[in-house]
Formats: sequence, C-alpha cells, structure tokens
Amino acid sequence: MARSLLFRTEDLSEYIVQFFVRHDITPKDAKIAADILLTADLRGVDSHGIIRLDTYYGTRLRKGLIDPHAPLSVVRETGTTLALDGGHGLGQIVGYTAMSRCIEKARQSGLAMTTVRNSNHYGIAGYYAMMALAQDMIGISFTNSQPLVAPTYGCKAMLGTNPIAVAVPSGKERPYVLDMATSIVPIGRITVYDKAGKPIPEGWGIDHEGKVTTNPKEVLDGGALMPLGGIDLMRGYKGYGLAMLVDIFSGVLAGSAFGDEVAQPSNNKPARVGHFFAAIRIDAFRPVEEFKQDMDHLIQMMKESPKAVGQERIYIHGEKEFEMAERRRSEGIPLLETVVDSLKASGQTVGLPFDLEVLGVIE
Amino acid sequence: MARSLLFRTEDLSEYIVQFFVRHDITPKDAKIAADILLTADLRGVDSHGIIRLDTYYGTRLRKGLIDPHAPLSVVRETGTTLALDGGHGLGQIVGYTAMSRCIEKARQSGLAMTTVRNSNHYGIAGYYAMMALAQDMIGISFTNSQPLVAPTYGCKAMLGTNPIAVAVPSGKERPYVLDMATSIVPIGRITVYDKAGKPIPEGWGIDHEGKVTTNPKEVLDGGALMPLGGIDLMRGYKGYGLAMLVDIFSGVLAGSAFGDEVAQPSNNKPARVGHFFAAIRIDAFRPVEEFKQDMDHLIQMMKESPKAVGQERIYIHGEKEFEMAERRRSEGIPLLETVVDSLKASGQTVGLPFDLEVLGVIE
Repeated sequence: MARSLLFRTEDLSEYIVQFFVRHDITPKDAKIAADILLTADLRGVDSHGIIRLDTYYGTRLRKGLIDPHAPLSVVRETGTTLALDGGHGLGQIVGYTAMSRCIEKARQSGLAMTTVRNSNHYGIAGYYAMMALAQDMIGISFTNSQPLVAPTYGCKAMLGTNPIAVAVPSGKERPYVLDMATSIVPIGRITVYDKAGKPIPEGWGIDHEGKVTTNPKEVLDGGALMPLGGIDLMRGYKGYGLAMLVDIFSGVLAGSAFGDEVAQPSNNKPARVGHFFAAIRIDAFRPVEEFKQDMDHLIQMMKESPKAVGQERIYIHGEKEFEMAERRRSEGIPLLETVVDSLKASGQTVGLPFDLEVLGVIE
Repeated sequence: MARSLLFRTEDLSEYIVQFFVRHDITPKDAKIAADILLTADLRGVDSHGIIRLDTYYGTRLRKGLIDPHAPLSVVRETGTTLALDGGHGLGQIVGYTAMSRCIEKARQSGLAMTTVRNSNHYGIAGYYAMMALAQDMIGISFTNSQPLVAPTYGCKAMLGTNPIAVAVPSGKERPYVLDMATSIVPIGRITVYDKAGKPIPEGWGIDHEGKVTTNPKEVLDGGALMPLGGIDLMRGYKGYGLAMLVDIFSGVLAGSAFGDEVAQPSNNKPARVGHFFAAIRIDAFRPVEEFKQDMDHLIQMMKESPKAVGQERIYIHGEKEFEMAERRRSEGIPLLETVVDSLKASGQTVGLPFDLEVLGVIE
C-alpha cells in the first residue's frame, strides 16, 4: 500500500471552505459542499471526497463550466412535486437545496419528489438520502453520470454508474443506508488495479469488442464497466435495467441529459447531470415507533442469522461506513500522498497553500 | 425438452375464472385474477402463471388460508398515501385494488404510494406497475415473499426473491418494464436444473454452510439463492441490499411480515405477504409528450449502440416479454404436459374438468 497522511476533519473542512470561497462560492454554500465531500471521506468512499476537489469542481469553476452563483429555478411545481433547473451550479449545493425542499414538501404532503436538470456531479448520493433520517422520513436519491457502463450485449459505455441511495430510519440500530452504484464496481476500482499492474477479477469489465477482460487497460481504453450482475448468465441485464431506471428518473423525468449525452467532468461543456430526490413520511403509513421497532427487528434478524463457514459477521447496508466515520472522526482522515501532492498543486494554482497539520502517517 | 400443449388464452382465462368462482371468488374478481395469472404466461414468466393455480391459490382457498371475501380495510390514509390491510385475501385482487386506488390518488395529488399488509402471493409484480402506463404515469410495485435468499456472509434463507417492478411510458417505442427478482435466479430455475440432473452455474446458489455450490440439490435442501451480484467480489451485497429495500417497503412500512417470517405458500398459516405500490404523474414534472420523446430517444440510444462481438441486438427491459405475449396471443400459450396433468388433477378435485381444446403440440 502507498503511504497515507492523516488529517483532522475540521482542518480539511476549513480548507475546502476557503478553496470554494476562492472560487466565488458563498461561505454558507462552501460549508455545505465541504460537509458533503468530507462525508464521503469519513465514510470510506474516498473516491467521491476531497480527491475530486480540483478535478471535478475547482477546474470546472475556473473554466466557468460550474456557475458559483447559479440560481436554482423552478420549472414546474405542485403540492407534492418540484422540477428544478440547477443552472449549471455546483452539484452539492443544487442537490442539498433540492433535497431540503423535497423534505419540506413531504412534511406538508406525506410524500414528495424533486427532479433537477442541468446540474453537475453532486458527490455521494447517500448524503442526500440521509438528510431525511432526522425527520423520521425515508430519503431517496438517484443521479445520472458520465457514460461508463455498457448495456447487456453492447460494447460501448452508454450509461453512468448511476447510483441508487435509500436511507431508512431505525430505532436502536443504525439506520439502513443503501448507497450503491448500479455497475459492479466504479471506474476508480479499475484504475487502482491498473496502477498496481494487477489483473481485474473476471466479470468487472469488458474490452472495446464487448468481451470480458481481466486487463484493466482494456476496460479503461475504449471498453466499459459491466452492470451489477455482470454477464447475461449471472443476470447482468438486471443491473443494466437499474442503471436505466436511474437515468429515467434523473435524466428523462428531470428533462436533463441522459444516456451517453451526460458530459464527463473533464469535458469543456456543461455536464447537464440530472438528479432525483424523494422523501416519504413514515407516519403517513404507520406510527413511527412501531416502524422503528420493526426496522430493528429486521436488522437483528439478518445480523443474527447463521453465518457462512469462515464468516463471523453479517452487515447491514451503511453499517461499515458508520463505523469507519466514527473511527476517522477521532483518528483523522487518511489521504494518499499522491492526493496530498495534487491538493498542494491545486492549492498553489489558487493561492491557497495546502499546509495542514499532519496527525500521523499510515504506511 | 419436455412436450408442451398449446391452449387459447381465452379458453384458459374462462377456465381460471370458473376455477376461482368454484372457490367462492366473485366472477368480477375471478376475471381480474385470471388476467394477472395469464399475463405471466403470455409474457413468458411461466413460473408465475397458471402453473400455480392450485398450489398457490386453490389449495389455500380450500384450506381457508385465503379469504375469498376479504374486505380490504384502510389502516391509515392521507391525500397521497394509503395503508391497507388485505385481510388475507387473494393476492391478485388485493394488489389490483391497491394499485387502482394508488393511481386514483396520484391523479389527484401528482404522486401516491400504497402499502398492503396481510396479503398473499400476488403473481407477477410487473402487472401492477404496468397498470399505470395507460394513465401516463410511472408505476412501481414491490412485494416481499417467502425466504429463499441468504444475506451476504450468511448461509440461511432470510429474504424473499423480493421483486422490483417499474413501468415507464414511452412514445413510439414499447414502454420500459423492469420486473426483476432481486436474487440472481428464482428458485424455479434451480428446480429445473435439478429435474434435468444438470449442475447449476457457479454463483447462483449456496449450500447449507454458505459455500457456493453447483449442485442444485444442495441449494434446494437447506441452502439458499444468492442475491443479484452473487459473491462478495462481484458485489452481491448490492443485491442483498435491494432485497432488504423491497422488504422495508413491502413488509416493515406496510406493517406486514418481513424477513423469514413471511410464510411459504405451502404452510398452513396466513402468509402475511406485504406489497408496496407507487404511481407518479409524468406531467407533474414535464409535458408528457416531451417525456415520451426523450424516452424513445433513450431507448433508441441503447438499441442502436454498438453490439458486442457475436451479438446482434440489444434489448430494453420488457421488450422480449411484449414480443412473446404477441406471439402467444396468436399461437396459443404452451403448457408443459406435467402442468396440464396437474391442472387435470386439481380440476377433478373441484369438479371442473380441465378439457380445453389443444391447438397444437410442441415437442
């Protein structure tokens, strides 16, 4: 493993806020964006955290592809639904505002759904779903993203890794938080194998002819990721169907880009990413306390069920991430040296030295 | 392949109606149930059609485990939500009524969700989702079912094959209809391999110790199905997460049974199956015509994208089933001779000979 340096969450947060403020984001919005990025790092979804600060956000802000002052405008609104136009704003701000308004509407109407067109990459989908938890609501968020996944029997990346995130409150147990790409693995996983010079497991990706390959370079170079399930025999068309589903809600219903028309963050054009949010009041269906007791019971049922040979523990979705976040909040967030180097480089570009105190080193 | 006999859809429908009427179901309800069962046969989901007429429905009706006159009662209701108690009625009637009322509510409010507790197996989930299509709505249906799937790292069946069905209207293209079990394959698929004395593909199921096995008997005899994705390396915990999601909406939110407490149809007790339905008005978000044009565009994008070597066609979800239904509607529905034999046997039990005209034989 490469060396990582440990940093305090608060220090990283303050740095990100300053970084965004330098890009003309208001301090209030910058704090929201920092919280969303660092929630990814805390939960162990390093690929969606501070590592993208400059590549996905800073660079696009400086090029004028993300509008720091984008006004979120209402396209259509009813008592239960809200269709928004993100105005090419920062995905995190757009997403946070859209989910906040969705929750507000659900408070009034029991249910609400919000779509967003013309946004940018918004970080981890799970953040927005989890916003509903404190309100005793179920939260849902989908987003489409740049094409990386081939449809079953296809060989070209036509769909994003289009995540599904659903957060459900529980009682004594930790909440259930599903936050899953609809591909088997994200593209970053393939890059990790490529950099390490190792073959990828058979079934994660295909080459430019649509053949399953274990060579990460062939996936990265004109190939594609496989949808959840993998090959046809293992029912990969279900993962392909889920990726389509997310694109229908986030792209088509929102009136945003979809399919392979969603732009890469590195493209010099508006990304036109679309998002979908939903909030559901538990008490519209049954008393909250009863629901939470049953959630605890369902969770315990799974965790206490017999383990496979060689296994000691069954996990609930989100559980590993909650534990990771607790650990990292006390011990610090580890950033790979290469990530620290790139933060130093981008910091220099914008005149904001990345010189935070290092709490420790992990070899 | 075993021999199949071909029957007219109308003849089978009339037979099913008579069969249910003999079990004290009203003719109106019997017609609905027949339509739902035969929609499965027409679409090629033979496992969920007439094959179950007696095992899942007739037998349970005669034992008093399904109440033919169950009144659907309202547990809780708001302008957008409806929590129903199915009163241990026939799953198809409960499901049809619940989705009809969900659609009616969505017509008023833009969105609606309906849960049902204390129901029985309701057939194919896709039928209820598709009910929304003619209303220019997106339809969603989930149901939980008897335990057949082990959680990741577990070895005991704790969750049903809990399907996700979503139907979305399109313009010139056929609608998108996702109707997928959250396991890799249904249990019936394992039985087919077992009867044929063939090994199952590696990854579909595990034995009683949680080890992946290719012996179908080991899956059937105290083992379990694997969730979509399969083993951990291929991200089977995502399929496990989706199965949990369906159980949370259908079981926990509905206040019905969940996890391994949902009874097998062959058990001598109420199944307490739970369902979830949602309907979403397209025009709450954007003009229906624009939406349909974009759906067509998304569908064409996929279908016209480059094919993998050796493949000639990319499918959209539901497409194969729509084509199959057209063919079977004109050529007849094929029933395996063993299925015909069991229909004859159950027909004799209830004094309703199964002696329909055979249109042809498929060897």
